[in-house]
Amino acid sequence: MRDVSIIGIGQTPVGEHWERSLKELAGDAIQAAIKDAQIERVDVLYVGNMCSGTLNGQEHLGALISDWVGLRGVEAVKIEAACGSGAAALRLGYVAVAGELADFVVVAGVEKMTDRPGEQVTAALAMASDGDFEAQNGLSFVALNALLMRRYMHEYGVPHRDFAPFAINAHKNAIGNPCALFPHAVTAEDFCAAKMIADPVNLLDSSPVCDGAAAVVLCPTEIARQFNARPVRIRASSAATDTIALHDRRDLLGLEGASLSASKAYGQAKVTPKDIDLFELHDAFTIMSVLSLEACGFAERGRGVRLGTQGDIAIGGQIPITTMGGLKARGHPVGATGIYQVIEVALQLREQAGANQVRNARLGMAQNIGGSGATVVTTILEAVE
Amino acid sequence: MRDVSIIGIGQTPVGEHWERSLKELAGDAIQAAIKDAQIERVDVLYVGNMCSGTLNGQEHLGALISDWVGLRGVEAVKIEAACGSGAAALRLGYVAVAGELADFVVVAGVEKMTDRPGEQVTAALAMASDGDFEAQNGLSFVALNALLMRRYMHEYGVPHRDFAPFAINAHKNAIGNPCALFPHAVTAEDFCAAKMIADPVNLLDSSPVCDGAAAVVLCPTEIARQFNARPVRIRASSAATDTIALHDRRDLLGLEGASLSASKAYGQAKVTPKDIDLFELHDAFTIMSVLSLEACGFAERGRGVRLGTQGDIAIGGQIPITTMGGLKARGHPVGATGIYQVIEVALQLREQAGANQVRNARLGMAQNIGGSGATVVTTILEAVE
Repeated sequence: MRDVSIIGIGQTPVGEHWERSLKELAGDAIQAAIKDAQIERVDVLYVGNMCSGTLNGQEHLGALISDWVGLRGVEAVKIEAACGSGAAALRLGYVAVAGELADFVVVAGVEKMTDRPGEQVTAALAMASDGDFEAQNGLSFVALNALLMRRYMHEYGVPHRDFAPFAINAHKNAIGNPCALFPHAVTAEDFCAAKMIADPVNLLDSSPVCDGAAAVVLCPTEIARQFNARPVRIRASSAATDTIALHDRRDLLGLEGASLSASKAYGQAKVTPKDIDLFELHDAFTIMSVLSLEACGFAERGRGVRLGTQGDIAIGGQIPITTMGGLKARGHPVGATGIYQVIEVALQLREQAGANQVRNARLGMAQNIGGSGATVVTTILEAVE
Repeated sequence: MRDVSIIGIGQTPVGEHWERSLKELAGDAIQAAIKDAQIERVDVLYVGNMCSGTLNGQEHLGALISDWVGLRGVEAVKIEAACGSGAAALRLGYVAVAGELADFVVVAGVEKMTDRPGEQVTAALAMASDGDFEAQNGLSFVALNALLMRRYMHEYGVPHRDFAPFAINAHKNAIGNPCALFPHAVTAEDFCAAKMIADPVNLLDSSPVCDGAAAVVLCPTEIARQFNARPVRIRASSAATDTIALHDRRDLLGLEGASLSASKAYGQAKVTPKDIDLFELHDAFTIMSVLSLEACGFAERGRGVRLGTQGDIAIGGQIPITTMGGLKARGHPVGATGIYQVIEVALQLREQAGANQVRNARLGMAQNIGGSGATVVTTILEAVE
């Protein structure tokens, strides 16, 4: 098995891109990543996407996008794992390069959600849950997270306002990210006054519906410096699943898929949570941030919320999270999110995060989640010396 | 890179499975393949599927199906490459095992199409084409194949009736396949009298809308015999793309994706078309059979149709095709087709094809196509001595 590095990154701003089609967005990100990597050959293109069939009337994104970006003939497929599609595609790119089946792999994530009315988007996202027992009975994704949040509040006696720091931190960090959808501050008062979506999840607990595309270029670490002065090494890549339905979980608040995926990644990288300098977690909802921090070993059960209230999640804190705005404020174009996360870790490790730079960041982790914890892909990245 | 073999196969009958859900069909095939392989551990599950979002209201099939079949926790994702999704998933399974990233990989293909009205299925399948320029202008998949067929007939002066042998051969072979949708003979008269769908493509030129699931288990060849007395080695696995839209092709009848994919496979296996004992090709339409035979080097340009009229495609002929009925008569549950094809080659190489056995079959090829030739995955299989 070969060591694998990221030698190119490219991202579009997250937004409502009514003037750009799905393939144009993906093409913009891919061209930027190829330019950043300065490669002249691509062996494989993997595209992470969840909803192109239902929201854009288009499948077959591998062939569509490889053709559009001038990679005619190249091996190309679409990978789908709900909101974890981006990192799932990255994982396959890692497998292809590590296993010596390809040298130069482009992995893109793309999602275009704002061309459709909100209720269609809600229905499309609900396809990440168990259709027979969750979506069928009216549980949207917000509703599933509301069940988790209510249970957490009940179990540990946590008031809703204690989740505010996760939204505040994300929005504050988005100000320094030119690609963020919501680069503006929110306060604890804003959080407490935000419109209720599915009690207790309110608007500021929730990530937005939006469009975006992001792409990375992978190659063997041993030749990475020929293409990029600052490659970022993939120290670990792992994927795990859990039951698709919440009601089948052995431990509702345990997020077993996340802990399994993270523990495999820690083992592969030979590190512990203490070694991680920043963590781009899957803050689709504030409760998901808290559960992820606990499942990945950054806090004991029931204490994840304190990392927010104590300021540990801020840049400069013990475990900075959502350093470029996270899903909440950078935005969550679902199939692209996993690639945005990895690009943000790469920017930190390349010391190109500007005002949001985590000082002396050497080891960063990204975790992308599909469904309410049913697919979890963890990537640990390291600056190449 | 390790050598990879298929040690387990499982398939449901192709049909209108109104009593079984998508996950139940997939589960039936996976359980059968795991039982055939007699393995006690699965590292990864890849699921090939095209239309679950639009036709079944369900995405996230990796997590859904791994959970359903009792593989909770296992790495699992869905792979989409239109009608080539099944073999595209197989290709990724091959990459994972060959590259030493996994030892035991289950690859399933599943599609459930008959729960929806025909016009919805036609629209869903059209998502394999270029949405902006083909589907948007009313070109269904049958219409795209009609353009190809009309051009072929014009270019080479071939009458429509000359395509009859491809339908007749497929239906004849389906009689010996207990999983086939249409196990009954058709005649040249039936072919010429069949209902017109999109001139010149008639009903007997076309593969049917149906449901089905198929699965295989892969492992390194070096340990394959511990699990199955008759493993089938993957001598070559390759994927290529072409322009998604027909009007962008340099050579409309050339099927460049198929020739590129096949030539890569021949190179990897170090064989020529002459060495192939049977060919499970992608006969979604009779014209696709003819173009595939030419693109893969079994006939010169414009002469593929003669392989039918001369009887070369029959079991016992020079290059037997669709030996268990093909897409035409076994059926074409789109995301599952690529796995059905590989299972049928495996049955031939294991000498378990019953009345349809190709004598002394040692090397078989399967080719699965997405769109009108835009994604092509070729697999060359060999009986392990």
